[in-house]
Amino acid sequence: MIETVRWDGDALWVLDQTKLPFEVHYVRCSDVESVAESITKMLVRGAPAIGVTAAFGMVLAAKDIQKKSGDFPEGLRQAGALLAQTRPTAVNLFWAIEKMHVCAKQGGDAEIVERMEKTALEIYEDDISSCKAIGRFGAQLIPDQATILTHCNAGALATAGYGTALGVIRGAVAAGKKIKVISGETRPYLQGARLTVWELLQDNIDTTLITDNMSAYLMARGEIDAVVVGADRIAANGDTANKIGTYAIALAAAAHDIPFYIAAPVSTIDPGIPDGSRIPIEERAAEEVTHVRGVHIAAPGVKVRNPAFDVTPAHLIRAIITDKGILYPPYSRAIADLLQG
Amino acid sequence: MIETVRWDGDALWVLDQTKLPFEVHYVRCSDVESVAESITKMLVRGAPAIGVTAAFGMVLAAKDIQKKSGDFPEGLRQAGALLAQTRPTAVNLFWAIEKMHVCAKQGGDAEIVERMEKTALEIYEDDISSCKAIGRFGAQLIPDQATILTHCNAGALATAGYGTALGVIRGAVAAGKKIKVISGETRPYLQGARLTVWELLQDNIDTTLITDNMSAYLMARGEIDAVVVGADRIAANGDTANKIGTYAIALAAAAHDIPFYIAAPVSTIDPGIPDGSRIPIEERAAEEVTHVRGVHIAAPGVKVRNPAFDVTPAHLIRAIITDKGILYPPYSRAIADLLQG
Repeated sequence: MIETVRWDGDALWVLDQTKLPFEVHYVRCSDVESVAESITKMLVRGAPAIGVTAAFGMVLAAKDIQKKSGDFPEGLRQAGALLAQTRPTAVNLFWAIEKMHVCAKQGGDAEIVERMEKTALEIYEDDISSCKAIGRFGAQLIPDQATILTHCNAGALATAGYGTALGVIRGAVAAGKKIKVISGETRPYLQGARLTVWELLQDNIDTTLITDNMSAYLMARGEIDAVVVGADRIAANGDTANKIGTYAIALAAAAHDIPFYIAAPVSTIDPGIPDGSRIPIEERAAEEVTHVRGVHIAAPGVKVRNPAFDVTPAHLIRAIITDKGILYPPYSRAIADLLQG
Repeated sequence: MIETVRWDGDALWVLDQTKLPFEVHYVRCSDVESVAESITKMLVRGAPAIGVTAAFGMVLAAKDIQKKSGDFPEGLRQAGALLAQTRPTAVNLFWAIEKMHVCAKQGGDAEIVERMEKTALEIYEDDISSCKAIGRFGAQLIPDQATILTHCNAGALATAGYGTALGVIRGAVAAGKKIKVISGETRPYLQGARLTVWELLQDNIDTTLITDNMSAYLMARGEIDAVVVGADRIAANGDTANKIGTYAIALAAAAHDIPFYIAAPVSTIDPGIPDGSRIPIEERAAEEVTHVRGVHIAAPGVKVRNPAFDVTPAHLIRAIITDKGILYPPYSRAIADLLQG
């Protein structure tokens, strides 16, 4: 199985996804600063994976405080603040940091490091279990012989393992269904071309790569049966932030009456945000657009926009596949019931 | 002014657009074979420019037949067939070849080369005049202070000069309007990032580059006032083939009630094709998707789809801006009236 991150008791080894698929290289992060940098620089990306990574970052911070006989509340507050400013959109990041803060306070300082390490490992294991649950639930929605369009990488590489959207595909394959996948390349960062395609080829799943602007054409030709993508944050009403380009796919799917599904663990739901207009959208560096793997592709001197995410309104989403079951519209009620239940 | 092609009386100099914007290099084509290759290899691209280029290819073929004292009808038939198989979607190619065949037959063999050269130069000059007419008509549709989204390159580089979609933008600027342009990069071949942005920066027009999957997000934020794109072939009912990705933009524009305009000369209309389903769509090599400027960007071994064009149905098009005036729905009648008039 692909290991997005690996904890060795002293450090977190992070698979450097910027080098995939051409090189499989792990970076050793032995302090919270290097963990934060691994998120900022997108060595690790994907909302659930960012959450897991941040949890281990908090453990490393606690170890450091212990070594220096520092002040745990203040040190962990600083570590949490450092991790929180790495990526603004994925809510799992804040969820994991908060979970680690709560854990830190649930006992004395003597065993705080052991307690936090145990919690981080639980977050890690729970993430894999959640993905497999998403896969089992989602498989029910996928017909045999279906061709599924996905966007970005909501796979093993975006989680502790197995994946959310790709978890649904793996779940359908595990249920004996014959599935074909079409992956958008996902400009500017090419998570589809580099990561999703790589993951699926390793699992021998029939995969075809397209540029992002080809999906509507394939829909018009009847070549796509369903869309399954991940999520970076889901508002209380079901509006969903995901990788830039998701919204255009959802509009095209709606125009062709093709089911559009979100696959995400419950930790991606942010009940404190009423709707998508309140989700902060990260704008990243111009170089991601003007350069591809270091090669300049645009006329020099041009202005650039580079929003990393967009918001798909709830009315375009046929269902939200979570680790606790499948949610259907109206999502405000479905989400409220799920979180209270 | 940018010269897409330049005729020196003996040869056609073709601006090698594959090297733009990093190098301005002209390739000398002195026979019909090298002209055909310049189209196939996309040194020259864009429906009107392909038509103009093919016309000069026919002149070079006639010169060669004359030099070898060959058979004009048979030689020109072969030359026309060679040029016709370069790119299947752009109808201007077939229009220009046919126009040259008609010209060849309108007189004796003695002055056939001079006659054909004159016709090719007329096609060249007419194309620039057509673009300027498109610009004047289209400018009426563009409000002052508008931000216009365009896709691919329907500019000076896609025509003998001035451009169709970019002709509308130039026309609006010439009319004293303050215009901003957003250009999609246009994967896989990056005509937007490489050509449109380069052209517009040379004209000091405010231009911002985005990846193709960002336009729906900007529409949702109210940052796009209108879409103007070119066309490779327009069917008798108004269905329009244009660069892959155009259809997705049209769907998003419709969802946000943003006007979506096609800009093209009348020679792009193919009245022999009743609707878009009959327009042949070229599929190009996988390497255009898996590589960017020679750099491998995808997991090795993956299957690829690479349709070069898609079809936008007439009902998504607010108006078609031609060199003979603006067409409005129902297009079947508007087109029939135009071609009879």
